[in-house]
Amino acid sequence: MSTPRTRTSRDAFIGAAGVLLRRQGYAATGLNEIVERSGAPKGSLYFHFPGGKEQLAVAAMKDQGERLRSAITAILAADEDLGQALGNLLDALAAGLQSSGYRDGCPIATITLEAAADSGAVRAAADEIFQGWLAELQARLLHTGLDAQSSRRRAMTILASIEGALILARAQQDVEPLHAVAAELREQAARTGG
Amino acid sequence: MSTPRTRTSRDAFIGAAGVLLRRQGYAATGLNEIVERSGAPKGSLYFHFPGGKEQLAVAAMKDQGERLRSAITAILAADEDLGQALGNLLDALAAGLQSSGYRDGCPIATITLEAAADSGAVRAAADEIFQGWLAELQARLLHTGLDAQSSRRRAMTILASIEGALILARAQQDVEPLHAVAAELREQAARTGG
Repeated sequence: MSTPRTRTSRDAFIGAAGVLLRRQGYAATGLNEIVERSGAPKGSLYFHFPGGKEQLAVAAMKDQGERLRSAITAILAADEDLGQALGNLLDALAAGLQSSGYRDGCPIATITLEAAADSGAVRAAADEIFQGWLAELQARLLHTGLDAQSSRRRAMTILASIEGALILARAQQDVEPLHAVAAELREQAARTGG
Repeated sequence: MSTPRTRTSRDAFIGAAGVLLRRQGYAATGLNEIVERSGAPKGSLYFHFPGGKEQLAVAAMKDQGERLRSAITAILAADEDLGQALGNLLDALAAGLQSSGYRDGCPIATITLEAAADSGAVRAAADEIFQGWLAELQARLLHTGLDAQSSRRRAMTILASIEGALILARAQQDVEPLHAVAAELREQAARTGG
């Protein structure tokens, strides 16, 4: 039974953790920094997250993953042309990256690379989130007439190219890699009808 | 003027830092852990790397980046068929990932996502390394008849898809994403003659 007050604190911790994990990763983010950013009382942290940083990180990953999944669904649904829809998705990611000074890339990738090998909970959350995004892409690809196996393969390649472009763009501090992938995906969609 | 002894210590620090940064990232890796793994005397660390962890990390990134660049060059040169050559590259990455218990992905990606926004030196090193790998891919694509702009775009998309597949594979603890990207790249190469 959560009162409005406790629900607010819980959400504040999750929101603050989500921002910090996305920008600087898991190891660099301490609980004190999360509490400070959240504005919520420190005493309530272990009430909501008795498992500490790992449990809070997993909750933040799921929250961010669900937000991005909703955004992917909306963007894919907004355009009949899949290549155009994927281009719009990449444009949105490029805008977020630029406006954050090349800090806000994928909210899941950094923590996955840092912690998946050592934390079963982080790895399982990352896998669940990526599989959810893949399912959205695959559902859309099935509509273009691809079979189940081909659509999964294509969905994985599309998601991989977007994730990789976000890494290259952060190194380059330029959105060129995102635009390059968008152009390639647009061409491929035009060629294959999906 | 480096004596054999000091060169050995320097290399040992770089080697140990490279392994640890690849497996657990920048923030989680302390200098003490690097020294311990290196087997070199702690007292010589600041002699070789007066800039401390950041300077050592950049040296380790460049060392790993150069090794991988050589490997990419060799693998691309070993097969006339570009799709096959890229498939071989992905197979080699998949084998390294599996044999390390899904720890050894890209040696540059984790530190880029963690530290590029806060360390100009790390960001510049990551950019230089990625641009070097892109140049290898682009050179090969130019041979297939693509123009400069198209070959750079394609090289970025290929590298991005490989980087992203390494993230997805670590979350999934399965090489499926690497095989999916390999199959797509093989098909695309067959279709476009490169």
